[in-house]
Order: sequence, then C-alpha cells, then structure tokens
Amino acid sequence: MINFGKKKVNITHNSGRDLWIKSKKVIPTGNQLLSKRSERFLPKNWPSYYNKAKGCKVWDLDGNRYIDFAQMGVGTCTLGYSNRKINNAVINAVKKGSMCSLNNFEEVELAEKLVDLHPWADMARFSRSGGEACSVAIRIARAAAGKFKVAFCGYHGWHDWYISSNIGDATNLDKQLLEGLNSSGVPDSLINTALPFNYNDIESLEKIVKNNDDIGVIIMEPVRNADPKDNFLQKVRDIANKINAVLIFDEVTSGFRINNGGIHLTYGVEPDMAVFGKALGNGHPISAVIGKESVMKSAETSFISSTFWTERVGFVAALKTLEIFEKDKVQNDLMKYGELINQEWENASKISGLKIKTSGITPLTKISFTDFSDNLPQTFYTQEMLKKGYLLGAACYTTTAYSNSIIKSFGEATIDVFNKLAKHRDEGNLLSKLEGPIIESGFKRLN
Amino acid sequence: MINFGKKKVNITHNSGRDLWIKSKKVIPTGNQLLSKRSERFLPKNWPSYYNKAKGCKVWDLDGNRYIDFAQMGVGTCTLGYSNRKINNAVINAVKKGSMCSLNNFEEVELAEKLVDLHPWADMARFSRSGGEACSVAIRIARAAAGKFKVAFCGYHGWHDWYISSNIGDATNLDKQLLEGLNSSGVPDSLINTALPFNYNDIESLEKIVKNNDDIGVIIMEPVRNADPKDNFLQKVRDIANKINAVLIFDEVTSGFRINNGGIHLTYGVEPDMAVFGKALGNGHPISAVIGKESVMKSAETSFISSTFWTERVGFVAALKTLEIFEKDKVQNDLMKYGELINQEWENASKISGLKIKTSGITPLTKISFTDFSDNLPQTFYTQEMLKKGYLLGAACYTTTAYSNSIIKSFGEATIDVFNKLAKHRDEGNLLSKLEGPIIESGFKRLN
Repeated sequence: MINFGKKKVNITHNSGRDLWIKSKKVIPTGNQLLSKRSERFLPKNWPSYYNKAKGCKVWDLDGNRYIDFAQMGVGTCTLGYSNRKINNAVINAVKKGSMCSLNNFEEVELAEKLVDLHPWADMARFSRSGGEACSVAIRIARAAAGKFKVAFCGYHGWHDWYISSNIGDATNLDKQLLEGLNSSGVPDSLINTALPFNYNDIESLEKIVKNNDDIGVIIMEPVRNADPKDNFLQKVRDIANKINAVLIFDEVTSGFRINNGGIHLTYGVEPDMAVFGKALGNGHPISAVIGKESVMKSAETSFISSTFWTERVGFVAALKTLEIFEKDKVQNDLMKYGELINQEWENASKISGLKIKTSGITPLTKISFTDFSDNLPQTFYTQEMLKKGYLLGAACYTTTAYSNSIIKSFGEATIDVFNKLAKHRDEGNLLSKLEGPIIESGFKRLN
Repeated sequence: MINFGKKKVNITHNSGRDLWIKSKKVIPTGNQLLSKRSERFLPKNWPSYYNKAKGCKVWDLDGNRYIDFAQMGVGTCTLGYSNRKINNAVINAVKKGSMCSLNNFEEVELAEKLVDLHPWADMARFSRSGGEACSVAIRIARAAAGKFKVAFCGYHGWHDWYISSNIGDATNLDKQLLEGLNSSGVPDSLINTALPFNYNDIESLEKIVKNNDDIGVIIMEPVRNADPKDNFLQKVRDIANKINAVLIFDEVTSGFRINNGGIHLTYGVEPDMAVFGKALGNGHPISAVIGKESVMKSAETSFISSTFWTERVGFVAALKTLEIFEKDKVQNDLMKYGELINQEWENASKISGLKIKTSGITPLTKISFTDFSDNLPQTFYTQEMLKKGYLLGAACYTTTAYSNSIIKSFGEATIDVFNKLAKHRDEGNLLSKLEGPIIESGFKRLN
C-alpha cells in the first residue's frame, strides 16, 4: 500500500520516483504506455504517479499540485480531468449496472450519433483502446477488399499488422511517429504486408502502388505534425479509388479537436472508414470504427468480438462527451488555448533569444528548440517548470479546463526558464544544470 | 433516444426486440460480442437490452424484471451486478480522476497482488479485454522464445494470430469453442503459424511438435468443458520444457472461479505465463498477463503500449474484487451454487424423464439435452423460463448474488418447463410450440 499526503507540501518527488523504480520489478517496461514513461519527461525527478486530478490540476503522491501542460491524459481529457458532467453520467451508469448479460442500449445511440456527425458513414463498431480499434478497422477493411496488403502513414498502435512493417528493415517506421520500434515477437511471415508512405509525399504512396498490385487498404493519420499540402489527402483518396482499396483515416489522435468529429470533415476529404479513440470518452476507455455500409458489412463475415467491448461506461461517457462538445462548442476553446500557448512560446522566444519552432495541429501543439539537435533544452525546460508547479512535455494537448490567466502564468514561467536556458547555453554550462539524465525519445529497450 | 418504462409491467419485449432489429442498421452484427447476440438465446423474443442490473436481477427496456441464469455478464460479474463495494471503489476513483498524464499507482499494487497470488510468477502487464491480453501474451512469448509458431487449445479471442489457424482449413477451430469461425480479413501469410491441438488428447500436441520444429509458444485453456485426464496438463508442461516453448495458460474464463487465482493453482501445474480477464474486475474492463521474469522481460524489447490501458478504474475495480474474493471466500459460494444448479437440473430431469448432461467446471455449468441433436429443447426451455422471469442460456456462470432460495425457485420453474418439454416431445409437437426460430450456435454470417 502506498502512503501519500493529502495537502500541498514543499515539492518532493520521492514517493513517485521510488514507486517508478519499484514498478519495474513487477511490470516489464514499468507501465502500460510508452508515452507515460518518466524517462520521456524527466528521467530522474518526474513525479510519475498521481493521487488526484481535477480540471487541469494534478496532485502527486506527495500532495504536490501541478498544472498539466504535458498531455492532459495523453490527449484524452479535452473537457478536463474528473469533469463533473461526465462523472455524473458515468456514476449513474455504474449504479444502474455497467455490465449485464443483455446489451446496453447506449451503444446503438453512440453508433447513431457518430454516423450523424459523419454523413458519409453508415455504421459503427466499438472497442476499448485506439490500437485495438485500428486492428478492427484493418480486419474489416481487408475482408472488404479481399486483398491483404496495407499502405500506411503515421502511427497506428502496437499490433502485429503495423509493427510487422519493421521486419526486414527496422528503420521503416522511423519516419512515422516513433523511431526504433522493434518488431520482436511479430511473425516474420508478415513481412511486406504493411508498407509505409510519408506524409505530404504522394510519390511515396504512388511508388508502393506501382510495385504492389495487391494493396487492399490505405490507412493514415489525416494530419499529425504538418498540415496537408498540395491536395495531399484528395490525392490519396484518388489513388484508393483507382486501385480499389479501402481508405481509413485514423483519427484516434486528431478527432474532436478542431471540429465535432474527424478532422477530415474540415479538410473535406471523405474516407471509407475512420477510427476514433482518445478524446471520444474524455478519458474513459472507448474507441470506435465508423464506415460506409458497403465496407462495414464485411464485419459480419469475420469474427470480431470481445466481452469488455460491451461494457456500458465507455458508451455513456462518449455520449455525454459528444453532447458537451456540441452544446459548448468545445473545439473553439481547444483551438483558442492552442493559439495562446503558441503565442506565449513565441513571446518567450523573442524575449530570451532562444530559437523555437511550433508544430502540430493547434490544439495539439508541440515545441522544438531549433538551435539544438538533442533533448537537452527540453529537459531543462521541463525540470525548471516542474519546480514552478507545471507538468510539461514537448507536446501540449489543450483542454477547456485551461483559462486565459492559467496560460498567461504559464507564459510568464516560460519566459523565466527560457531566459535561464539562454544564459546557460551562452555560458556553455547547460548540461551541468541538469539534475538528472536527458529525456529519452523514440523506442529502445525499455527498462 | 430510447423511451423505456420505469416500473414492472406485464411482460412485453417490444422495445428491446425492436432496438435489436434497429441496431443492425448502424452496427454490423448488431453488437460487439457474439455471445450477447439475441439469436444465441431466443431469436425472436429475447429482451436484448437492459436498463438496470443489480445483484442477479436485470430490468429490460420495458421495465420487466428477470433473474439472470444466462451468463451474469458473460462471466464477469461473480460478485453480482452493481456490487456496492466495487461501485464505491470505482466511484471514488472516478471522482479523484480516472485518467491523467501521470500513471495511477494502483497498477503497481495490482501487479504485486497477482504475483503474490501466483508464487511462480514475477511480473504483470495489463490491458482492457481478454482477447487483447492473449495477444499481448503471444507477442511477449514469441519474443522470448525467438520462435513464432503457436500450438493452441481452446478459445483465445478474435485476433489475427488465433483466427489465422482457420486459413486453408476452415474447420481447424471447430473442435475448440466456436464452430465455423471465418478467417476473412486475416492475411494468408499467417497460414500454419497457429496450430490447434485437442483437449485431453496429448497425441494431438505430440503430432504438432513432431511435424514442426519451430513451436515457440503453447497456449491453452487449462480447462473448459471437461476436467484434465491422465495428467494432461503436466504432459503439456513436459512437452513445453522439452521443446523450449513458452507455456501460457489462458485463464480469461476459468480464473477466480474455484480458487482465488488461476485454476492451474488447483491442478498443480505451473505455466510460464497466465492470462486473466472476465472475473478480474467484476465487469469493469481490465485484463492481465502475468509471467516469469525470464519471459516477461521480453516485453521490454517489443512495442506493446496503449493509452487506455493506463486508465484507473480497471485497476481499482480489480483490487477491490480480489480483496472481496479473499476476505469472503467467494469461490466457495460460486462452487456451491454451481452444485445446487446441477442438482436442480438432475432433479428436474428425473421428474420429467428428460435426459440431460451437465458439463463444464462447477461455477460455469452447462446443460445439454442428450435425447436431442439440435437446439430445439434449449430454445423451448429459454422461451418458457423467460415467461417465468428468468434469463437463460445453455451455460450458467454462478454469482454470489444467488441464494439457496433463488436456485430452489429456479429448480421449480425448470421442473415445470421440463415436464411440458417432455410432453410436447412425446406428442411430437415440440417444434410447433416455439414462438420463434431455433437458437443459433457457432459462427456463420452474422446479420
């Protein structure tokens, strides 16, 4: 049992840091998600574990309070942690029984709602995690196409169909989200079944199509770090039509951030299927695959079935989340706060003379320090912001729990840290100012 | 939106039946789980959807109340629906924030607890559904073995690695749990990577091993419909040792029903890994893979990571469930109620003259009518029991929410239905007494 304090005390991170070390003895890799590993934020001093989270505030095991500018639950909690309205809906579902031998009617409502939001789609299936939903989509799409090869762009989870692309060439995925993904444990026989193309590089897809006449599925994140250029999405759509492949937009990360649905609605290009996760249930596990009837009907010919996909809370949380998205025009706020964060970063850059670049869609904005080629400045930035009460990563997912004044304060703290960072850089002693190792990125043996 | 009644009314099933028909327009196959399809219980008149569930009672959309002798949430809710103690723990976790950028400390506690309960195991990883956990286990085991072929026995979910065994021969899986599983959408290149052997038939495994020198993994349900005979489990263990394969016991269904852990603890045979799901969180989505450190460490070399695996509710629900299992000696009750149900079935059989057979482990007992080769008698039994206020399938998962008197009443109702069934059989008019089609079993195109 863990003993944690209840009130704010002087900042110490011992409990969380100690537990992270201990966890690796009973959990290989330490946790269930690469993106929540302490080594990716601040290897030595990251608080690692939380006791309580509310709005954009987080309390660690020692009772220290932080404002979350890290990820807001890896992008799940756009309405803030422990949102009262979502909580009420979820708690009501738990009290009325969240599991049963009969089905929950909310899954039909959620299917209807998602289809309403995406006029090109007719049907939906649901699962619990984003990678799992991508796997469901791939299964259905392969069944519909009757051809097995997949051309993909972006990040689509941990499953064999995706990681297999690194068999034979372990750098195949490096130009997607994560470098160095190891295909250990994925059957060699899947070699050349999933082929990567690069974003905004239509020739890389054309080349795949030219060299493989059996591409049945094209799956891609419609956007990640850059906007589509030169009609890229429409060109992919045209290729899919030409070769009779099922086009899937993986909106697990991008969905419900700039409009109340897939980001493709804004770009005006329609896929045959789309996948949602993260923001859909404001942190409660629920993921969805939607698609045209002609494709989705293939689910009836394949066995795709799991007990916990039928649990009620995920559906109830998603319905309430979508209701709030619609009523409160949530995406306006998510966009606004992303713009404000970018402005604060630009402002701090101007004042300190540190060169930076921001990238990503506005509600998922990312900073990089262009005078550096390593994670040294980000490590210092996170280390110093933590002392000021901020959880920080390289990327910020915005939330309605932010306010103009919270972001203003974040900007002031950033100016202070950037000034120190510039000074230490100029003095050539930045490395010596780190209180622990530099942040790890990409993938390597995780221990 | 669905309009449902709040109080008990005369039994009508229109709302649920109508919604099930409607659902198939927006959800291919109608829902997320084969085992919750109305066609498997009572194709025409099954209530299909619930509004409320508490203990072993279920209220449908029209306000009708039933006692659940069907599946108790497909075997998840051994402590009863909407269990007060579990609810309190879950609601507390929701209020304190169930998602965050930091990790929840309960995942370390749950890993330690599962390792404590299984002295041979050192480490644990977690996911959200049972099939997903089997996939995680297979990935880790293949990475540890460095050999990709899998020999399996039993049911292990919907993922490609498993369903691929039906490529080339669509009957390969017929002797496992579900007949006719279609491999549509699974890449042909996985052919011969997963090879089935049969329960209590050690020669079927020996044959696989003899013909394939690259079996890296053996995965099996330690028990399903029959007890292990002639030292079957130990013989599988010996073969795994001999060929240097990782042995996985899939305890998703069998775990936590006859003891507080895997059923293998009772049989006295230790695997290298075990997988848990269903009963672990009393209906809240959580699944686990445990294993020896030498095997589990391979998770550090492979990318196995998903956002929703980090959500807090599953861990909190599992910790509270395991606490109650331990304190209340829950498995004694699960066993007792299974024995009582079997006695009631035997008694009704004796009185009515209907020949039956019971099978399965005691807390997951299954009835079959041995004078029939089809689902005619089961359809009639379910149809008539529904009128008496019971949800019924061919298998009963027991729950502590039962009582001796509930099972006594169930037995009396069964006697009445068995007497009618025997009479109609003798009169040769049983089929004409059905008010809808016969129950479907196995898998075929689902619409």
